[in-house]
Amino acid sequence: MRLERALTRRALLTRGAALGAGAAAAAAVPARAAHTPPRPTPDRPPLSSQLVSYEEVVLAFRCHGMHLEALQHPITPLGQHFVLIHFDVPYFAPTDSYSFTLGGRVRTPMTVTLGDLKKRTIVKQPSILECAGVGRSYAHPRAIYVPWTNEPMGVYEYTGTPLKPLLEAAGLLDDAVEVVFTGHDEGFDLGTRHFFERALPVDEAFKDGVILAWEANGQPLLPHHGFPLRLIVPTWYGMQSVKYLKSITVIDHTYQGVEQKQVYRHGFSSSDGGRPIQKKAVRSAMMPPGIPDAISRHRFVPLGAPITLQGKAWSGHGPIVRVEVSTNDRGTWAPANLGPPVSPHAWTPWTFTWTPRRRGQTVLSSRATDAAGNIQPLRAAWNQQGMAQNGVERIGVTIE
Amino acid sequence: MRLERALTRRALLTRGAALGAGAAAAAAVPARAAHTPPRPTPDRPPLSSQLVSYEEVVLAFRCHGMHLEALQHPITPLGQHFVLIHFDVPYFAPTDSYSFTLGGRVRTPMTVTLGDLKKRTIVKQPSILECAGVGRSYAHPRAIYVPWTNEPMGVYEYTGTPLKPLLEAAGLLDDAVEVVFTGHDEGFDLGTRHFFERALPVDEAFKDGVILAWEANGQPLLPHHGFPLRLIVPTWYGMQSVKYLKSITVIDHTYQGVEQKQVYRHGFSSSDGGRPIQKKAVRSAMMPPGIPDAISRHRFVPLGAPITLQGKAWSGHGPIVRVEVSTNDRGTWAPANLGPPVSPHAWTPWTFTWTPRRRGQTVLSSRATDAAGNIQPLRAAWNQQGMAQNGVERIGVTIE
Repeated sequence: MRLERALTRRALLTRGAALGAGAAAAAAVPARAAHTPPRPTPDRPPLSSQLVSYEEVVLAFRCHGMHLEALQHPITPLGQHFVLIHFDVPYFAPTDSYSFTLGGRVRTPMTVTLGDLKKRTIVKQPSILECAGVGRSYAHPRAIYVPWTNEPMGVYEYTGTPLKPLLEAAGLLDDAVEVVFTGHDEGFDLGTRHFFERALPVDEAFKDGVILAWEANGQPLLPHHGFPLRLIVPTWYGMQSVKYLKSITVIDHTYQGVEQKQVYRHGFSSSDGGRPIQKKAVRSAMMPPGIPDAISRHRFVPLGAPITLQGKAWSGHGPIVRVEVSTNDRGTWAPANLGPPVSPHAWTPWTFTWTPRRRGQTVLSSRATDAAGNIQPLRAAWNQQGMAQNGVERIGVTIE
Repeated sequence: MRLERALTRRALLTRGAALGAGAAAAAAVPARAAHTPPRPTPDRPPLSSQLVSYEEVVLAFRCHGMHLEALQHPITPLGQHFVLIHFDVPYFAPTDSYSFTLGGRVRTPMTVTLGDLKKRTIVKQPSILECAGVGRSYAHPRAIYVPWTNEPMGVYEYTGTPLKPLLEAAGLLDDAVEVVFTGHDEGFDLGTRHFFERALPVDEAFKDGVILAWEANGQPLLPHHGFPLRLIVPTWYGMQSVKYLKSITVIDHTYQGVEQKQVYRHGFSSSDGGRPIQKKAVRSAMMPPGIPDAISRHRFVPLGAPITLQGKAWSGHGPIVRVEVSTNDRGTWAPANLGPPVSPHAWTPWTFTWTPRRRGQTVLSSRATDAAGNIQPLRAAWNQQGMAQNGVERIGVTIE
């Protein structure tokens, strides 16, 4: 009976590939992708734009969304930050002798221990992380992957050391192009067995705010958040902040690994290689007001009493300069009050006072603008992998 | 566009009610349930037995599954334990002056502070919690609720004080029947606004292992795990371990609240009130071996090398006396080695050595038997709310 179910689940995924364009399209999936269900394209749609497969629900339970009520805090309370887990969580003993290698195109290859890092300049840096798959469930058709809506973000205060001086100590050779970060977490994706691995161009790796972190909110990183050591790149989406750091390798070419050349791409069809996903698109989030229904999460607020709507806004392209709020469904926006950013590498708090004046349902939204002039769109531009869907959120509320 | 989507989501839930038995059945849903989507019954099936709605995926991201690789540890690492959140997480300042009331049918009603509790007998007690909704996604038709598969459990080591002496200090009156525990978390379920609340019969409240806990794994409870104070009832399913404790009230009758009389029931149709869900059914879980595919979570193991399969087993009805393992799909079982229980209130570790001898796919399963003679079934008996689905898990593995 369970076998039946397992087989049906498998069949569903296969059918997902076949539904759109028949057996020919299914057969066109490269043979090396046998380990991973095919992801949909416009020609090969997902099972449904409105429903989610059980495999994806298992991912939703393994990964964590940020609890939106935690948006009231400048720093996300421990454990309420989003987490994306690519493979299995690897475990390590808590010891300062944990080490990684720093090599490749450097003058002085070295093995660096956690204890060594703790003797370097130490920073405490609130930093925002956000999954590149944000809003994937709003894309249509939608890629089969972690089916995020608006919850994959958070700000912890990290304790760590800046990366730049460490790279300078190793001494990059003149032909250095990119810096590759490799984690201890291993598995298959798109049929390729690999340790999770991502690269940064040298100039990005040298930027202010890029640190190697061993603590979040004053205690060792939680296991699934990267214990014992994690790269933090505040301006890029979260996949760049490689966990369980095993090696740093300077290379003289553009990195070609699966997590950079095949996954985390902004493309339009399966024949389009796409552009790499890098910096966070401008976005804002609102703490849902009132009290919820347990299942639908719909909100209920009282008539006539002023409510302080609040939330956070951020962008990988510069500081936040404006947040606007809409409390109706007619597309009218009013400016929110901005507080100072929690840190140059974190988010900007905003508040807006709203007095619900009529019984019935309404929709609450916020939208942010950054210093580079990017405005959070009402709906994000579609892409094949459902990446960076930073559209304005709509929170349904009943006034009663 | 987002509005369109929101409306479609709403329509889907409504349609879910109507699909099975037409408008008459939909109209039969009580008016006070307007806040909560109707849950399916055999006469009113869910949208699909194989797909999940977005509302439920949002719940899956808010709640947390245990990461199954953490089954290698006797105590679940901080943050990797399952969490179910009924409403919003309430926040409190970290202070020993946090208090709850202890009243009702007692001789000496009192207000008790966290500081008071810390002056009482202190125990450090590894305890197992598991959500009553375990395996809901395996039920068919399936209730619309948190769509758990096999991941909602965990063992933390709690620091707390036994409940019994505290109740004795208050002095239960002769007509005391049940003890009601109320949390600070508030919302609607099935159309009723309430603080989350559950009752225990007096004899259960006096049992060994029932404690009030303020720490897990040596540090204050995480916010979503019940900070600052939580009831722990190791033998019952997790809903009984009320979080954010606000009051304890002794009553002279059987409790009639929504979370006990309507939710958490084992019933067979909407006209059947059902029996209350209480103690944990016997279950076992296996740490998935080898390495995973990122999306399907299917496992890959090498041919010929011995693998130590390992996991945990538990029951609310007594100690575990046997765990068996199957490494094929032919229903043959072999005994696993049992270790000592992590505590009388936690789980029992087991191991089994397996050497994969043929390339191809197989299925790994474990099943537990407790001292009361309960054997984990291949498939759990169906019930309307999809509760306590403790059937044997089937882990798909490719040997290569």
